[in-house]
Amino acid sequence: MMDEIQKRLLNEVAGLHEVPEGAYNIRANGKSVGRNSTAHIDISTKEDGSGLVIRIQPGTKNESVHIPVVLSQSGLHEVVYNDFYIGDDCDVTIVAGCGIDNCGIQDSEHDGIHRFYVGKNSRVKYVEKHYGSGDGKGKRILNPGTEVYLQEGTQMEMEMVQIKGVDSTERKTYAEVAAGAKLLVRESLMTHGEQNAVSSYEVKLNGDGANADVISRSVARDSSYQKFDAKIVGNAPSSGHTECDAIIMDHARILAIPQLEANDIDAALVHEAAIGKIAGEQIMKLMTLGLTEKEAEEQIINGFLS
Amino acid sequence: MMDEIQKRLLNEVAGLHEVPEGAYNIRANGKSVGRNSTAHIDISTKEDGSGLVIRIQPGTKNESVHIPVVLSQSGLHEVVYNDFYIGDDCDVTIVAGCGIDNCGIQDSEHDGIHRFYVGKNSRVKYVEKHYGSGDGKGKRILNPGTEVYLQEGTQMEMEMVQIKGVDSTERKTYAEVAAGAKLLVRESLMTHGEQNAVSSYEVKLNGDGANADVISRSVARDSSYQKFDAKIVGNAPSSGHTECDAIIMDHARILAIPQLEANDIDAALVHEAAIGKIAGEQIMKLMTLGLTEKEAEEQIINGFLS
Repeated sequence: MMDEIQKRLLNEVAGLHEVPEGAYNIRANGKSVGRNSTAHIDISTKEDGSGLVIRIQPGTKNESVHIPVVLSQSGLHEVVYNDFYIGDDCDVTIVAGCGIDNCGIQDSEHDGIHRFYVGKNSRVKYVEKHYGSGDGKGKRILNPGTEVYLQEGTQMEMEMVQIKGVDSTERKTYAEVAAGAKLLVRESLMTHGEQNAVSSYEVKLNGDGANADVISRSVARDSSYQKFDAKIVGNAPSSGHTECDAIIMDHARILAIPQLEANDIDAALVHEAAIGKIAGEQIMKLMTLGLTEKEAEEQIINGFLS
Repeated sequence: MMDEIQKRLLNEVAGLHEVPEGAYNIRANGKSVGRNSTAHIDISTKEDGSGLVIRIQPGTKNESVHIPVVLSQSGLHEVVYNDFYIGDDCDVTIVAGCGIDNCGIQDSEHDGIHRFYVGKNSRVKYVEKHYGSGDGKGKRILNPGTEVYLQEGTQMEMEMVQIKGVDSTERKTYAEVAAGAKLLVRESLMTHGEQNAVSSYEVKLNGDGANADVISRSVARDSSYQKFDAKIVGNAPSSGHTECDAIIMDHARILAIPQLEANDIDAALVHEAAIGKIAGEQIMKLMTLGLTEKEAEEQIINGFLS
């Protein structure tokens, strides 16, 4: 059903060599090429065809959903709206991600809009990887939008990774966190060439004891440009922390605009940001261990992003 | 020449009980009520009457300029443009500041736009205090604008204080820092009642070894609102640090939007921000030493802002 390029992309974005266990939907070049629902997790196509509805029954534990997307056709543009309804008391892992291989001259674009409605006292781990390849002139464009609505006592951990090959991305994440709920975000971003990446977060802490921890690590190489824009709003007795660490290389440019908004006397918000290049001493140390300068650099970057 | 209210304001904003030593210009209710130029420092009125020109000769050391402004008349609105030309190799202190007493029903407003052109290898200390008093319904409005152009090797230290009584303020500071020059900013801000304060900084590090350190400490009480907006731009091998610590009390709201923009691989930029309330333990500790809760709170705030 899938060709070699698509299989390679699938491996890059979802770590899959074959069909995954559990529930899944695999989308290739705009069409579903494989789907499996399970006893507790139902995947269906929306009536208007605009995307998927994924329903996870209350109490579902230790199960996973994979919904990777691969594009290998130049000139394809698609917007997909996927909605996740996750019941109370669940413990699930959701793996999304998109890989684009573009060897053609037309731009290829996938915009995935994911909405998560998470019930009470659930734990959700969400992994999203973006990857591009292909040496065509056509650009590889990914604009993911993520909306997260956490009910009381829920914990959601989001791992957002974009390491390679995406020419242009505008990432938007919006979250509302209720009492006792917790949102953890770990973003890793690397841009190179002439790439352009904009990543924005808005997290509203709306309930007593709501907590958010948003950490972004990024590397900007060559002549790439990155903008990181994170806003944490404390509307209740809550705590929020955001951290943005960036390594700048070559002729890259980075703009970081964190925002803290405290609307409640018991909102405790903290932000840290640092932009700098790799310390010369670090490279020297690794070079005395026998690495070339290039290898030393790669090792430092890999350590930083992982 | 000045009445008791004006004298009290003058003391609050410039620490002056009488006419200061050195160069000065005292402005009261829209008119100059005293001026002194010295051998090295010339103060003159602009031809169009829009403000002052202050010229400090190269090599001027250990001298000071005071240009306080007091307003005690309700309904007065004024915009003043003061330009400072400071020669090479100077070491001077400049004290500005504005006090408004408004017992009337009309708003009183003073917008002072200060531009500093600082020559090479000079040291400048700039102190600016804003203060409001009076129980009239008319608002006390201060919108200071500050532009700073630092030539090579110069150091400028800015102390910006607004502790009390200003109903609305929009503070804008813009700076360009050349090679080897250094800008230090210490801002202390307190808002109460229904006050509104917006403070924005844009600092461009344009030369090799340029350095900026912008630190803001603020306390927002009652139903007041504060917005802090600091942007540091690294256009050269340079280092920048900005820190925003805020104490939130009562029903106040605070928004902090720092920005770091690195356009050079050798620009090292760091930001920290924290918003939170006074820790309960701190108050408890002072109360066991015999202070009332109110006194303990005041002592913590005073320590934090000084």
